[in-house]
Amino acid sequence: MSAKSQAKWTEDALRALRVDRGFRLADIDPESTPGYSGDKADGTLDLAAGLDQLAEYQERLYAASRGGVAKDSVLLVLQAMDSAGKGGIIRHVVGGVDPQGIQLAAFKAPTEEELAHDFLWRVQKRVPGPGLIGVFDRSHYEDVLIGRVRRLADPQEIERRYGAIVDFERRMAESGTRIIKVMLHISPEEQGARLMERLERPDKHWKYNPGDVDERAKWPAYMEAYQVALSRTSTDDAPWYVVPANRKWYARLAVQALLLETLESIDPQWPVADFDVEAEKARLRATL
Amino acid sequence: MSAKSQAKWTEDALRALRVDRGFRLADIDPESTPGYSGDKADGTLDLAAGLDQLAEYQERLYAASRGGVAKDSVLLVLQAMDSAGKGGIIRHVVGGVDPQGIQLAAFKAPTEEELAHDFLWRVQKRVPGPGLIGVFDRSHYEDVLIGRVRRLADPQEIERRYGAIVDFERRMAESGTRIIKVMLHISPEEQGARLMERLERPDKHWKYNPGDVDERAKWPAYMEAYQVALSRTSTDDAPWYVVPANRKWYARLAVQALLLETLESIDPQWPVADFDVEAEKARLRATL
Repeated sequence: MSAKSQAKWTEDALRALRVDRGFRLADIDPESTPGYSGDKADGTLDLAAGLDQLAEYQERLYAASRGGVAKDSVLLVLQAMDSAGKGGIIRHVVGGVDPQGIQLAAFKAPTEEELAHDFLWRVQKRVPGPGLIGVFDRSHYEDVLIGRVRRLADPQEIERRYGAIVDFERRMAESGTRIIKVMLHISPEEQGARLMERLERPDKHWKYNPGDVDERAKWPAYMEAYQVALSRTSTDDAPWYVVPANRKWYARLAVQALLLETLESIDPQWPVADFDVEAEKARLRATL
Repeated sequence: MSAKSQAKWTEDALRALRVDRGFRLADIDPESTPGYSGDKADGTLDLAAGLDQLAEYQERLYAASRGGVAKDSVLLVLQAMDSAGKGGIIRHVVGGVDPQGIQLAAFKAPTEEELAHDFLWRVQKRVPGPGLIGVFDRSHYEDVLIGRVRRLADPQEIERRYGAIVDFERRMAESGTRIIKVMLHISPEEQGARLMERLERPDKHWKYNPGDVDERAKWPAYMEAYQVALSRTSTDDAPWYVVPANRKWYARLAVQALLLETLESIDPQWPVADFDVEAEKARLRATL
C-alpha cells in the first residue's frame, strides 16, 4: 500500500515535493502541506499507520539483500537550517524501523584528517550497503552550503563540487542506491521561535549554540546557496525534495511518504530459499 | 522511576539475573521469569511504559555528554544461541530509543583482516563514546564460545582470552562505560520449535541457515562453553546476566529493566548552559 493510497494524500509526495526545472525556493511556503489534504489529527493517524508499512518494507528490503541477488538500498539525505527538525525526523520516522536495517551517519564540522582529503572522502565511506536504509544527517551538501556562505573554499572549488556531487550520486544510483534528498524548509520566523524555546527551557539548553544566531543572520545567503545547490544537483538519479517544515507533523509525514513511495517502487521480495526446505525440516525433526 | 518501582517487579533485574559465585547455568530454567510476578499481559504493559522512561534516560545521557563533562556511556552485550531472540531485543527494546543515541555493532564471522589481528581488535573500535548506548549483537565472547566449541584456536589461546577480556572490560569501565552482558537463555526444545517455524514460513526462510542445525547438535558443548565463559568473566566491572528467554515478552522486559536500572544509577543530568542565557535571549530577540 502506498502513501498515496492513504486517504488524505491527494498526490504522490515524490511528485508534489520534487525540485524540477524552474524551481524557485522562494516560491515555497514553509507553512504549506503540498499533496496532503488532511490536518494535524489526520497526519498523526497517517504517520502511525505508515510506521508499520515502513517497518515491513524495510524488513523485505533487508531480507532480499541477504539472498545475495538484490543490491537495492535507500539513502535519505537530510539538509536544513538549524532547528528545522532533522532530529525529529530521525526519531519519529526513521526510529520506527528496526535499527538493524538503518545506517545513520551524522556529518559534523570536518576533522583535520577529513579536511586533508577531498570533500567526498568521508561521505563515500558511509554509503549504505545492499538492503540498508542509510540516513545522512547533513552531508556532502554542507560543502556547497556553509562552504559557499562562509567562503570555506574558493569559488572555483565550489563550482567544481556541484559536478563532483552529480557524478558521485550517479555512480551510487547505478550500483543500486535510491537517493532521496530532502531539504526541510522553515521560515526564519519559525526558527526564531524554536531557538527562543530552547533558551527558555533548561532541558533544551544543550541543543542551543550561540553560533546559531550568527548563522541565522546569514539567512538570505543560505537560501541563495540552497537555491543554487538544489537547482544544480537535482537529477533523475538523485532528485531533491523540498519539504515545508513549519508544521512538524507534515514534515514527518511527508518524509515518511517519500520513503514509502520509494520502497514501493523497489518492491523488495522475500528471497527464495537456497536450501532444500523439506530436507532441512527432516534434518531438524531428527533433533527434536 | 526504576523498573523495580513498576508494579510487577518484585526485585531488581540487576540482582535477580546476575551471574555470581557458584553460578550454574544448568540450574536456570529458560521458562522462568525471575524477579517478575506478572504474566504476559502485564509484561506487555510494563514494556510499553518502560519505553518512554528509556527514551528519556537516553536523551539525558546524551545531553549530559554534550556538556563535555560527563563521560558515561552504556554497553549492552547480547550473546545467545541461534533464534534466542537477539533481533527481537534490538527491535523492541533498543528500537524504542532515538537512533541518534544508539551505536549498534553486529559481529559476524571475522574477515581475513580481522583474523590477522588480536581477537579484541575489531571490538575495541566499536566501543560506544560518551553519551551513547552501544549494543553488541554478538561480541568478543564468540572467540571463547564458538572458538572453544569448534576449536578455532588452541586451548592455551582460549585460556589467555578470558584474562584479556577481563582486562579489556575493566579499562572500558574505568573510562566510564557501564557494561551489561546478557546471555539470552532458551531451551533446545524451544530452539527446535523456532527453527521449525522459520522453515514453515516462506517469509522466514531468509533467517534460516542449514548450519543452524549443525550448531544445534553441539548444544551441550555450547552450554559448557557458556558456563566457563560466564563464570570466568562476570566481574563487578562487567557482570553477566542470564535472561531466561523461552518467553519472549519476559526477555524483552528483563533487558529493558537492566538498561533502566543501569541508567537510573548513572542518573544523567541536563547540562548547565555554558553561555549566558539572558544575553543570548537578547541577541536572538534582536533578530525576530
